[in-house]
Amino acid sequence: MQNSAIDKLISEISKLPGIGRRSAQRIALYLLKNKDRSFISLMKTFETSFKTIIECSECGNLDTVDPCNICTNHNRDRSSICIIEDVSDLWTFERIGFYKGLYQVLGGSLSAINGIGTEELSIDKLLDRIKKNKINEVILALSTTMEGQTTSHVIAEKLDQIKNLNVTRLAQGIPIGGEVHYLDENTLNTAFQLRKKII
Amino acid sequence: MQNSAIDKLISEISKLPGIGRRSAQRIALYLLKNKDRSFISLMKTFETSFKTIIECSECGNLDTVDPCNICTNHNRDRSSICIIEDVSDLWTFERIGFYKGLYQVLGGSLSAINGIGTEELSIDKLLDRIKKNKINEVILALSTTMEGQTTSHVIAEKLDQIKNLNVTRLAQGIPIGGEVHYLDENTLNTAFQLRKKII
Repeated sequence: MQNSAIDKLISEISKLPGIGRRSAQRIALYLLKNKDRSFISLMKTFETSFKTIIECSECGNLDTVDPCNICTNHNRDRSSICIIEDVSDLWTFERIGFYKGLYQVLGGSLSAINGIGTEELSIDKLLDRIKKNKINEVILALSTTMEGQTTSHVIAEKLDQIKNLNVTRLAQGIPIGGEVHYLDENTLNTAFQLRKKII
Repeated sequence: MQNSAIDKLISEISKLPGIGRRSAQRIALYLLKNKDRSFISLMKTFETSFKTIIECSECGNLDTVDPCNICTNHNRDRSSICIIEDVSDLWTFERIGFYKGLYQVLGGSLSAINGIGTEELSIDKLLDRIKKNKINEVILALSTTMEGQTTSHVIAEKLDQIKNLNVTRLAQGIPIGGEVHYLDENTLNTAFQLRKKII
């Protein structure tokens, strides 16, 4: 690339997650060749999104209002909070639609390597929220990675101090549609240890 | 997704080439979570690119000046024009750096299915340019797809009218580093038909 403006554009695009240099080149060309339609439209959407989409100060969700539409929706079950790592997890829950309670987005999980401690995650905020509102159940829906499980453990320990609170976590085992001979060792081991009596 | 602003953002991003809905979601979240750094910086770059990067009216290249820096560079060989389908091909040639002549970006190849005829491609412009300037050689560097080869053929026919002009095309055969037993039928057949006498 000889032109620094084009080079800058490509390198900015390639900073996006999951976008390599080749894809960034392709996207840059696409935008430059469709300036009056795609490029202008994307820029406008970016501007609006930048201005209007904000983080909910209550739960950490992204919305155009604060508190977000989930936090203020009185048709939802306001006695249960589901703890998730990321807004994308919230989107997944909402897309499937079986859960009708509130959320708390942690914004990651504890990670010594990445320097994320209990302060970086909104754990204290969560404790406050549970105490202030009449929460019956806290559902820990974190990843079953090392970090996710450590985070679950730390939160569970803190929640243990609160009286009359049910703390649950997602079930672990064989995923639905999973074939036993394709399962990884850890999943199979867990599924075996947590086996359920059926008769 | 319940929020239409977020939904709009994701769907705009997913229109980019090679970006599916999942990637678009990931990129949208990344931008919204890094508003003050990544998002603002990408928006600024987009704005600058939109304003400054233009198509060269001479050859179809993208640059911040018109005619582009290649067309006006008098250190380049101004007697040869390399015909390419797309600006990304020009970038590839320039990255490798062995070619020192001029370019003509066609902006695609002839395609009856996509309704691209000789008018949509800048073939007439090319003929004008060759006649006006003292061009000795035209190198057809189009893809060896059906469309690319048809386009080459059409251009070659038109160039045939111009006197004292060498028209060449890229060599066809086994790619360097290619293993014969992995080659597709067409390539092997072509390489065999076009075999060269070495002794």
